Amino acid sequence: MSVVMDRSPEVRKASLRAQSNQSAPVYRGPERLHVADQEWTLGNCLAKINWLHAPILVLPPLATIYALYTVPLLLKTLVWSIIYYFITGLGITAGYHRLWAHRSYAATLPVRIFLALAGAGAMEGSIKWWSRDHRAHHRYTDSEKDPYAVKNGLLYAHLGWMILKQNPKRIGRSDITDLNADRLVMWQHKHYLKIATFMAAVFPTLVAGFGWGDWMGGYFYAGVARLVFVHHATFCVNSLAHWLGDQPFDDRHSPRNHFITALLTLGEGYHNFHHEFPTDYRNAIRFYQYDPTKWLILFLSYLGLTKRLQTFSENEVQKGMLQMEQKKINERSMKLKWGTPLDKLPVIEYEEFEERSSTEPLILVSGIVHDVTPILESHPGGRAMIRSGIGKDMTAAFNGGVYDHSNAAHNLLSTMRVAVVRGGMDVETWRKMPSQDHLTGIIGK
Amino acid sequence: MSVVMDRSPEVRKASLRAQSNQSAPVYRGPERLHVADQEWTLGNCLAKINWLHAPILVLPPLATIYALYTVPLLLKTLVWSIIYYFITGLGITAGYHRLWAHRSYAATLPVRIFLALAGAGAMEGSIKWWSRDHRAHHRYTDSEKDPYAVKNGLLYAHLGWMILKQNPKRIGRSDITDLNADRLVMWQHKHYLKIATFMAAVFPTLVAGFGWGDWMGGYFYAGVARLVFVHHATFCVNSLAHWLGDQPFDDRHSPRNHFITALLTLGEGYHNFHHEFPTDYRNAIRFYQYDPTKWLILFLSYLGLTKRLQTFSENEVQKGMLQMEQKKINERSMKLKWGTPLDKLPVIEYEEFEERSSTEPLILVSGIVHDVTPILESHPGGRAMIRSGIGKDMTAAFNGGVYDHSNAAHNLLSTMRVAVVRGGMDVETWRKMPSQDHLTGIIGK
Ligand code: HEM
Ligand code: HEM
Ligand SMILES: [Fe+2]
Ligand SMILES: [Fe+2]
Ligand SMILES: [Fe+2]
Ligand SMILES: [Fe+2]
Repeated sequence: MSVVMDRSPEVRKASLRAQSNQSAPVYRGPERLHVADQEWTLGNCLAKINWLHAPILVLPPLATIYALYTVPLLLKTLVWSIIYYFITGLGITAGYHRLWAHRSYAATLPVRIFLALAGAGAMEGSIKWWSRDHRAHHRYTDSEKDPYAVKNGLLYAHLGWMILKQNPKRIGRSDITDLNADRLVMWQHKHYLKIATFMAAVFPTLVAGFGWGDWMGGYFYAGVARLVFVHHATFCVNSLAHWLGDQPFDDRHSPRNHFITALLTLGEGYHNFHHEFPTDYRNAIRFYQYDPTKWLILFLSYLGLTKRLQTFSENEVQKGMLQMEQKKINERSMKLKWGTPLDKLPVIEYEEFEERSSTEPLILVSGIVHDVTPILESHPGGRAMIRSGIGKDMTAAFNGGVYDHSNAAHNLLSTMRVAVVRGGMDVETWRKMPSQDHLTGIIGK
Repeated sequence: MSVVMDRSPEVRKASLRAQSNQSAPVYRGPERLHVADQEWTLGNCLAKINWLHAPILVLPPLATIYALYTVPLLLKTLVWSIIYYFITGLGITAGYHRLWAHRSYAATLPVRIFLALAGAGAMEGSIKWWSRDHRAHHRYTDSEKDPYAVKNGLLYAHLGWMILKQNPKRIGRSDITDLNADRLVMWQHKHYLKIATFMAAVFPTLVAGFGWGDWMGGYFYAGVARLVFVHHATFCVNSLAHWLGDQPFDDRHSPRNHFITALLTLGEGYHNFHHEFPTDYRNAIRFYQYDPTKWLILFLSYLGLTKRLQTFSENEVQKGMLQMEQKKINERSMKLKWGTPLDKLPVIEYEEFEERSSTEPLILVSGIVHDVTPILESHPGGRAMIRSGIGKDMTAAFNGGVYDHSNAAHNLLSTMRVAVVRGGMDVETWRKMPSQDHLTGIIGK
């Protein structure tokens, strides 16, 4: 049984057509071009900036550098910053991403409230806004409609798509009716700026301030610097995870698996798997791969706090990997010389084979005529053996009658094909095998 | 293009037949059974021993143990023993094996004399005797006619076949006309006992004796103990190399590749390769694999002392590996569920599909009816999407019209097959694709 790898050409063509439809320039009538689609000029460069996002992305790194020179970093504050990095980061990965964008599991209300608040502390927009873009990203990966398509450059996928204004009509649509019907999600969306400011800046400051009197450190390290780290860690899912690593499941699109990306992104680095099986609550499927987001979800499920963890079966996972391996084998196979295909060989009469054999070293095996010149002097079974076969049907001798040749010998034989004998393909010769014993006198002795 | 893996069933059957012919009990008329073929009894057990080989194999280990307690081991003698181990070992591997048994390269007279003498110092019989058995081993690997078939047990392949008498009629015949015509080989054969005794015992003793006065050490360490090591190192090619390791080229027979065997046997441990490509002067084909025998032959060729080094092309080598990988993929593939094969599905009319869809969640894709119950609630694209497809032909939608589903989705789809629609396999539907845009209103907008 061979693995069905490629879809039929019809299917391929049609899906190509569909894709090119997607990225075709969109006609919008006589109205003006959206600023995002205009050429860069001195006049429009300020208008091209998204003035809501840009400060959130540019100021914290500057403030962090300022703090490093002026605000002492206490050990307690460092530990708290790291803990808060994980809390807000997991708010994005376990909450925004795996719970709401993909619904890969269900969670009880306390967990959902916790994740909605923690995720807000990462200042990456509301659940609703984030998930809408993310679903479009999955649905239109790498196309024009992908909000953070890596084909526009690594920096674009990482930051550019947020710093620059987007034409909202360009971004693919996605179905978020489930989120619109979710009261917690809508509450978070409505009060987003207040909640996010509190969770990103105020709360970490209060903890360090009331806890050990480090108000400045709490603000600058657990608040601002931590935010910078969470930002770039999660942004790496859109940039690095579409650029670095291998593609064990599907190589038609950009998502890739890499351990380093996983380390940086709390386990979201097995991104080739994730795009293939987006509703699987896991990103890493092996126990030795780093996926703390999965571990958290699984741990909470033991406590009864998360439920209905979705997985694709190992059967489906294996099939994907197998097909990619098959594809690679096929590619390698195409680079090798296997000999002239049977249907490209001239058909000759048996008499012609016998005749030509008096001047050329031709041997008949399985109805195919082989010119054994390349191996006449170097045949591993000796010159005498191969000479004895010239002008004869050596099917049985070659296949065990004299010697049961290896795969390698069969392969080599194929490269020497020069013709097919008419009616010779019916392997009638096989039935005659015992009578060929005289060739050596050894068999059946 | 897919890799041609298995031979046709006819070929397989015939070669099986040929093999079983080989190992079938041989009728020898009314004469008495050869002692090797008799049951073990108290009366024949001494007669079953080969009294020429047994002492050569049993006494040196005993003498070595004796020496360890009574003869001091000088550093100089140790170094000389190791050097002489390599010299005599290479006499076997580069000389007996790769030069004479396989003719994998040609050598000038001085090199041939050197190898014939060095090889004799390993006390493993004359070139002629050794090569005859070795060629039979290659030709009849694992069969009844294999002189050291590992299927008789690891110990048999390592030692037993020499310590016990063999029925000469059982061992497969091999063509050694080239060796019979070789004057050096015949000279070595004729004077073998003298030459071997001199090279194995006298010469190493003389070197240590005249060199640094260590006559006893020379005899016991560079002579006897060194012989034990060379013996078991080279015997490992017949035992360990047919037992430990992997089979990247062919798994129908016992030869295996392993680094440890290579270390023990001066590079003969890539034995799966070697049985596949026996006239290749290399056993290891990668620079990082351990094959000092190859290095010696190659080095001597730079000096003009060896010539016509035979190799199989990388093309042939790659083909063998590819086929084994293909075989493994096929085996894994057979263990997975790919869905009901198309020809096992019932054929129904389009009307029946539409009718049944009012009660069952059936979706038509590429002329095949799928029961999507398993994914109705957990479809990654949402419930609405999949519900919208029930009772309809979703070929275009599934393949890019709405969403260009991944390999994983295609695989999953196949597992849900329940019927084929009559005349539906002609993918006529594809041509209609653009008109299906109304499904979402997004494409071509
Ligand atoms: C027609 C093209 C032939 C090719 C390409 C070919 C190739 C080979 C190769 C590659 C081997 C090495 C062992 C292996 O890989 O299995 C081999 C061994 C051998 N071949 Fe052929 N062979 C051919 C024809 C024949 C014929 C016609 C005979 C007999 C009449 C024959 C008899 C043998 C024997 C007896 C061996 C075993 C040698 C040994 O290992 O000592 N071959 N051949
Ligand atoms: C008939 C059986 C179906 C199966 C087995 C199936 C399976 C899947 C799977 C596994 C995915 C995850 C992404 C991927 O692997 O490509 C997916 C996504 C999707 N499916 Fe289906 N699907 C089916 C039918 C449909 C139909 C009929 C539609 C549309 C009418 C549809 C629309 C979508 C969309 C839009 C997505 C993208 C969701 C996202 O990533 O946000 N699917 N489907
Ligand atoms: Fe992605
Ligand atoms: Fe995702
Ligand atoms: Fe072997
Ligand atoms: Fe060999």
